[in-house]
Amino acid sequence: MDSQRPLILISNDDGHLAKGINELVSFLRPMADIIVVAPDGPRSGMACAITSQLPVTVTPVSQTEGVAIYKCSGTPTDCIKLALETVVPRKPDLVIGGINHGDNSAVNVHYSGTMGVVLEGCMKGIPSIGFSVCDHDPDLDFSPTCPYVQQIVAKVLEKGLPEGSCLNVNFPQHAPYKGVKTGRQTRGRWGNEWASLPHPRGGGNLYWLTGNFANHEPEATDTDRFAIENGYISITPIQIDMTDYTLLEAMKSWEFK
Amino acid sequence: MDSQRPLILISNDDGHLAKGINELVSFLRPMADIIVVAPDGPRSGMACAITSQLPVTVTPVSQTEGVAIYKCSGTPTDCIKLALETVVPRKPDLVIGGINHGDNSAVNVHYSGTMGVVLEGCMKGIPSIGFSVCDHDPDLDFSPTCPYVQQIVAKVLEKGLPEGSCLNVNFPQHAPYKGVKTGRQTRGRWGNEWASLPHPRGGGNLYWLTGNFANHEPEATDTDRFAIENGYISITPIQIDMTDYTLLEAMKSWEFK
Repeated sequence: MDSQRPLILISNDDGHLAKGINELVSFLRPMADIIVVAPDGPRSGMACAITSQLPVTVTPVSQTEGVAIYKCSGTPTDCIKLALETVVPRKPDLVIGGINHGDNSAVNVHYSGTMGVVLEGCMKGIPSIGFSVCDHDPDLDFSPTCPYVQQIVAKVLEKGLPEGSCLNVNFPQHAPYKGVKTGRQTRGRWGNEWASLPHPRGGGNLYWLTGNFANHEPEATDTDRFAIENGYISITPIQIDMTDYTLLEAMKSWEFK
Repeated sequence: MDSQRPLILISNDDGHLAKGINELVSFLRPMADIIVVAPDGPRSGMACAITSQLPVTVTPVSQTEGVAIYKCSGTPTDCIKLALETVVPRKPDLVIGGINHGDNSAVNVHYSGTMGVVLEGCMKGIPSIGFSVCDHDPDLDFSPTCPYVQQIVAKVLEKGLPEGSCLNVNFPQHAPYKGVKTGRQTRGRWGNEWASLPHPRGGGNLYWLTGNFANHEPEATDTDRFAIENGYISITPIQIDMTDYTLLEAMKSWEFK
């Protein structure tokens, strides 16, 4: 590792073998030294989950000039926590999650293991970015994302991010992209979330998570969903502080005995 | 179930056999009909994780007058999602997570499976509350929490909560409590998070998650940590929208090619 170059810590929730993370490494290699600590298999939908009931391991996978790759038996969040205390030679300049297969806009930020990576980097005081593409094809051509990934990373290396905030970047399914739009988290709700199948041994059903997302503000033009649905790359700044300050103020009138 | 009485859906992350959830049911039984759909074992630290790679089951455990209990093979969030589509006879008036063993103040809101329950209820448009006690003793005497749990639940049944916001309630370790304080999420950071042990078969270490929380604003008197550390029950209103609107505004000057 070259101490003169930026150091980027990368993880994801699709595992260290996913195409998206390996493409991301190749996009960022010209700009920085890179350490990957990623799950040893798929961890989609793991949110900010941490492994509290079992021990976790981290194992070297490969080491080439400026790129060290490790796999970890834990969650995406564990990967960042463990990397920062055991693997990195110094505090990374950035933490990046991705490139994720699947849409992390709107309320999906709460379920996303990719954003678990990013929120953890952010909670550790490191500028952090999540990249996702709204496409689940494991052989997806990620090359159209490259110039935008590089620009956004360069911008954050240059400007930094405020303490306690990070970026959630989502690419539409289809390139070419119309450009970049910043936007807020869309209000909306998942429904019809379970496909049921009879249990093969009888006695009840198995339920498989699925569902449809209903956008509750389809007319709004300042949201992450609007950007993605209209062919733009969406960037939403996300904060660690989840306090509802408006309600906090209103609750001053609540009385308890 | 009596359609004239409030209906409360309860889950947790310590599992349906934990003392905390069964005490909560007994505290709320006089006020409402209750459906419990809780994990079939411990799911601490599961955040808003969803089960995306395997099917999930829900199984009746017991049914008494006004209290139906089910166990679920999934995460705390799965429990709420599955309960709402398969178990409840009508939309519940409240979703409650807890009573959790362990502190969910400050950044712990991001890791907590109890708050995963609460955020999911909130995302489904139902007023939702999480209750936690800063004590891991599985035989803890929960009785001092009872009058406050009942008051807070009654208040929320009466007043409702704004769409997209929920409550994170934390009790100090020791009763008697000095009262109730509303407060914002404390800024701070976990560190020294891993205890390492040599792998019994050699070849590296096992890492066990542990750590210390550093409060970055120990002088502030309007935070959840201040309340708890000074013997008060803390209530923090939490919102689903994680957008950083200040940074969103600042990013208008960012240019992308």
